[in-house]
Amino acid sequence: MWLFNQPPRALLRERYNFEITEGFLQNLQRSCVRFNSGGSGSFVSKDGLLISNHHVGADALHKLSSTGTNYLRDGFYARSRQEEVPCLDLELNVLQSIEDVTERVNAAVPKEASAETAHEARRKVIAAIEKESLDSTGLRSDVVTLWKGGAYHLYRYKRYTDVRLVFAPEQQIAFFGGDPDNFEFPRFDLDICLFRAYENGRPASTPHFLPVSPSGPREGDLVFVAGHPARTGRLLTVAELAAVRDLTLPTRLSWAKQREVLLASWSARSAENARRAADSLDGIRNGRKARDGQLAGLLDPRLFAEKTAAERAFQARLQGTGQFPDALRAYEQIADSVRAASGQARRHLLLETGFGFVSESFGIARTLLRAAEERAKPDGERLEEFSESSKASLELELFSTKPIYPDLEILTLGDSLTLLASELGSGDPLVMKVLNGKSPEERAAELVNRTRVREVVFRKQLYAGGSRALAQNPDPMIELARLVDAQARSLRKNSEAQDEVRQQAHAAISRARNALAGTNSYPDATFTLRLSFGTVAGYDENGRSVPPFTTLGGLYERSRSMGNRPPFDLPERWVKRKSRLNLDTPLNFVSTCDIIGGNSGSPVVDRSGRFVGIIFDGNLASLPWDYHFSQEQGRALSVDSRAIVHALAKVYNTKDLVRELVPGYR
Amino acid sequence: MWLFNQPPRALLRERYNFEITEGFLQNLQRSCVRFNSGGSGSFVSKDGLLISNHHVGADALHKLSSTGTNYLRDGFYARSRQEEVPCLDLELNVLQSIEDVTERVNAAVPKEASAETAHEARRKVIAAIEKESLDSTGLRSDVVTLWKGGAYHLYRYKRYTDVRLVFAPEQQIAFFGGDPDNFEFPRFDLDICLFRAYENGRPASTPHFLPVSPSGPREGDLVFVAGHPARTGRLLTVAELAAVRDLTLPTRLSWAKQREVLLASWSARSAENARRAADSLDGIRNGRKARDGQLAGLLDPRLFAEKTAAERAFQARLQGTGQFPDALRAYEQIADSVRAASGQARRHLLLETGFGFVSESFGIARTLLRAAEERAKPDGERLEEFSESSKASLELELFSTKPIYPDLEILTLGDSLTLLASELGSGDPLVMKVLNGKSPEERAAELVNRTRVREVVFRKQLYAGGSRALAQNPDPMIELARLVDAQARSLRKNSEAQDEVRQQAHAAISRARNALAGTNSYPDATFTLRLSFGTVAGYDENGRSVPPFTTLGGLYERSRSMGNRPPFDLPERWVKRKSRLNLDTPLNFVSTCDIIGGNSGSPVVDRSGRFVGIIFDGNLASLPWDYHFSQEQGRALSVDSRAIVHALAKVYNTKDLVRELVPGYR
Repeated sequence: MWLFNQPPRALLRERYNFEITEGFLQNLQRSCVRFNSGGSGSFVSKDGLLISNHHVGADALHKLSSTGTNYLRDGFYARSRQEEVPCLDLELNVLQSIEDVTERVNAAVPKEASAETAHEARRKVIAAIEKESLDSTGLRSDVVTLWKGGAYHLYRYKRYTDVRLVFAPEQQIAFFGGDPDNFEFPRFDLDICLFRAYENGRPASTPHFLPVSPSGPREGDLVFVAGHPARTGRLLTVAELAAVRDLTLPTRLSWAKQREVLLASWSARSAENARRAADSLDGIRNGRKARDGQLAGLLDPRLFAEKTAAERAFQARLQGTGQFPDALRAYEQIADSVRAASGQARRHLLLETGFGFVSESFGIARTLLRAAEERAKPDGERLEEFSESSKASLELELFSTKPIYPDLEILTLGDSLTLLASELGSGDPLVMKVLNGKSPEERAAELVNRTRVREVVFRKQLYAGGSRALAQNPDPMIELARLVDAQARSLRKNSEAQDEVRQQAHAAISRARNALAGTNSYPDATFTLRLSFGTVAGYDENGRSVPPFTTLGGLYERSRSMGNRPPFDLPERWVKRKSRLNLDTPLNFVSTCDIIGGNSGSPVVDRSGRFVGIIFDGNLASLPWDYHFSQEQGRALSVDSRAIVHALAKVYNTKDLVRELVPGYR
Repeated sequence: MWLFNQPPRALLRERYNFEITEGFLQNLQRSCVRFNSGGSGSFVSKDGLLISNHHVGADALHKLSSTGTNYLRDGFYARSRQEEVPCLDLELNVLQSIEDVTERVNAAVPKEASAETAHEARRKVIAAIEKESLDSTGLRSDVVTLWKGGAYHLYRYKRYTDVRLVFAPEQQIAFFGGDPDNFEFPRFDLDICLFRAYENGRPASTPHFLPVSPSGPREGDLVFVAGHPARTGRLLTVAELAAVRDLTLPTRLSWAKQREVLLASWSARSAENARRAADSLDGIRNGRKARDGQLAGLLDPRLFAEKTAAERAFQARLQGTGQFPDALRAYEQIADSVRAASGQARRHLLLETGFGFVSESFGIARTLLRAAEERAKPDGERLEEFSESSKASLELELFSTKPIYPDLEILTLGDSLTLLASELGSGDPLVMKVLNGKSPEERAAELVNRTRVREVVFRKQLYAGGSRALAQNPDPMIELARLVDAQARSLRKNSEAQDEVRQQAHAAISRARNALAGTNSYPDATFTLRLSFGTVAGYDENGRSVPPFTTLGGLYERSRSMGNRPPFDLPERWVKRKSRLNLDTPLNFVSTCDIIGGNSGSPVVDRSGRFVGIIFDGNLASLPWDYHFSQEQGRALSVDSRAIVHALAKVYNTKDLVRELVPGYR
């Protein structure tokens, strides 16, 4: 997960005799696309055509669907550019430049200040840097915290907000095998989705793009993955990791499983329920399986023993030099901070993160409430999501015309109010105010039925009118958000102060590490562009050798062996057109590339920078990679470019699309 | 939920002009059958034929099935008595007599003793009473605690342990609509299962049985339900109820939902997985939906306000008389005891109840370990499940040849060890000993693969050999049970002492209530035979009137409207033989009878004591009945006797069976 401004030149030279050029890097960087909704992708033609995963596009497909039209389940193909469907609130980011602003950020933070003051000063200078950059370049400008506080880099992105759907296969082939086969290998998924970026009403010109290789990769090939891994915790101290293992992961898992049961049982009640909840339920199931694997990894005492030994060895080394008292102190500070934060962690998740009020309506209501308060403040004093540099993205999301389903809102809000009451106790004063003398379900129904925040016009009116408009248009959901806000903000303030403590401590550790071990390392993932590399390679599992490729023939065989029952059934097109296919075509492959959630949709490129596949998953053994990378059994899963081209041509008859991807095809 | 020895004569006379006779009561009592595995049933012929629910019989059907034979899913019909299949470890109980032993029990408990001493004395006298009764009558003899300590009655049962499967429909029609329609009405389920009790290798002679009415009940009819409601908490004080709402139910629900996700996702991986986990998964889903409804009821502040007002009013009345200082003090004692128990509740559930070690193997291992220790003690000093009076039932279960699936064992044990580590913390000394330096999954695999407790011969050998045999045959699962046992026993001891405190307190309240309000009330449910009554009646739901009956025609219509998709698909037989059916035949009906979990399979009888239906569920509004009974919308659901007879004759061609149920049919 290397930074594009600090690529692993020496490593690549030594291990693979590969000289990474500026041209290679620059074309890859500018071809890569970040889905602001979560995920990665890449341009694959000069006319703004881009490819990502079906499960990354699912959010957009879900928002475009309605009772009559189910793009998520049934797929879509625009036979002409006129048929390409504008997505509702999709923002894509393409990285243009990176600038190190560490010195400026740290210089603005007074020494010996309280954590709270330090955090405020840091927030202020970051807002100023972002705003200056936005004003001077017009580009989206984010200051990113790296090495958990060791460095601050300014990332500038070109934004695309007119993004149109070009092609999606049926979910049944994109996510063949469903939850049972998720994070498993061998695998047989055509997990792709194609969009086109537009500018000024016309397809964007994208001179930087990845030419699609119709010949895919071979076993043993060196391949690169460029994408946006969301978050790792590999640099966490043992104290932090223990809190993840014993508190954060179990809590999140327990709540996610409760929501999974809720949505699964509601979905079973009707096909329309299933359609409405599908995107949420898929996401929850995916997160559940991922976190189960992460927790299993952290509960393996060998992983912890290794982490502990490494930490102790490093501390001993620090001690030996006598030069890094602040780094040694940092471990204690982090442990203290973890303890301080743990006591409030569940309340924070419920009230501030919002697990107590799960619904689109509450999210909108809180944004409206806070926008009124925050936008009245100077830029540098606002909560970061209301800064001037975040304004455009915030408004894109806030004013989205995406469908919101009151029945689903009542269901999830009622369930999460039940969780709130169970976790904090029905006698908690805030819980009693929130429920207002009603049962959770009744209160949820009242709030959802009476709020007007689902009307976009109403949102715009309140947003423009600020606090006065809120006072003139009392809305029950906004009043609920207001009721909770004092405690929620106070929890956030404390939590941000603890983050600052840990950030400073990690900065000290980072300085010591760089001084002792050099700067040849990569920071934890931060949903920013990273480069990883590896080879196409199978692995051994319980003495069984798993080869690196699966084929289209394997897909049909898997379906047959599972009785063609959901989720192992095939779309009608695939059944009918089987005879047109070369069943030896590689479908999925595994590589040793380092990936993590957020990398979904990342292009896999070969030595010459050609697109040979697309990341869509990792295997079970890769799940602990969030906290510890190991290539022993862990593998990244990709769809092979050969299967993509072959299926588009033979199953979907998308000849124009194929020719745009592979000029001169057939 | 009236006691058979204190039936509501006056109420029935006043409200329904019905004179309940000894003959009516005695025939009903002796026709009723308790499934020791949980559930109710009744004899419906003089030759030991008995009917219960498919979901009550599910445990037996599951145990009789194997990879090739799926009785649970596919159903079964014995065309002759020779084909009737002996169940593996099914024990049925038929109540013969009830004796009030309150005075003897209380006299044996020293006044002013510590809770622990009092509990031991109570345990001792109860064991003695049971043993004496068993020796003198040969009948299963259980002393039952009623009114949470207000009275002790000795129940004597005839035991049947040679029980054979006669008929089961396909699960798809027994549980049509599955989880989505569970606890809902209108409903369309043929939730029945027929067994035959045998004695000395021949069909038992059962002169007391319920004649099946081929004409069912009519709207407005007075009907009776006799069965074995498992457990209610209607007499809980407000302090106890608050703990159920804020601690017990949320904890159990959260854990059950986690297990549901585990089993559902494992089941999706293959048809054989699904078969192996089906009975557990159905049970968990049923319990989850029931508890969700109970929690929703308790989170309705009106229910609590009502309970609180009633408690305060009663306390004021007590205060007014000046005669019941012990009853007034009892409320405080209960509240203190609840607080004392709450701190240890989760640890108790994990270590003693066994939620940390979910697997058949662990249960067997613990029984073997404890049997060796307990059987060496005098009867009155043993844990109650090892008393002489429980011996036969314990051995029936312990030596069952039921199938145990190692893969499923590893799955559930691994998951529950993960829960254990998450709940108690990975650094908890006992957790560390339990995991023994391995990850939960690895440890589970090691334990399940190496234990021999799945071999019945090994179990018998260890059970017979006691502590010495255990020492000579060290088994890893038994050693795990031993590792946990000191803490588990200590938690149980504390918990039993707290139970004693509350039992004495409730006895004081009960005495005061009887003195002030008379004894015309029923105690909370205790999985003993109870009588309830009501009328066949629809209800209003959100202004919509729900009629009391559904029909066979409604079944086909429901299936069609849900696209015939699982769980709304129909068994092939039902599709093919539709034309043979009178579609107007009533299928399910609702009544105002008071039922609860454990009542499943209870006969519904009319004024003349004829079988007119069988209880199989309650509607959503009935779920809070565990804590508060209301006939406003809550209803009991039954299968109509007309549908049973019609389906057996027309869909299943079980002519002999029909003639045994309805002599002279057609």
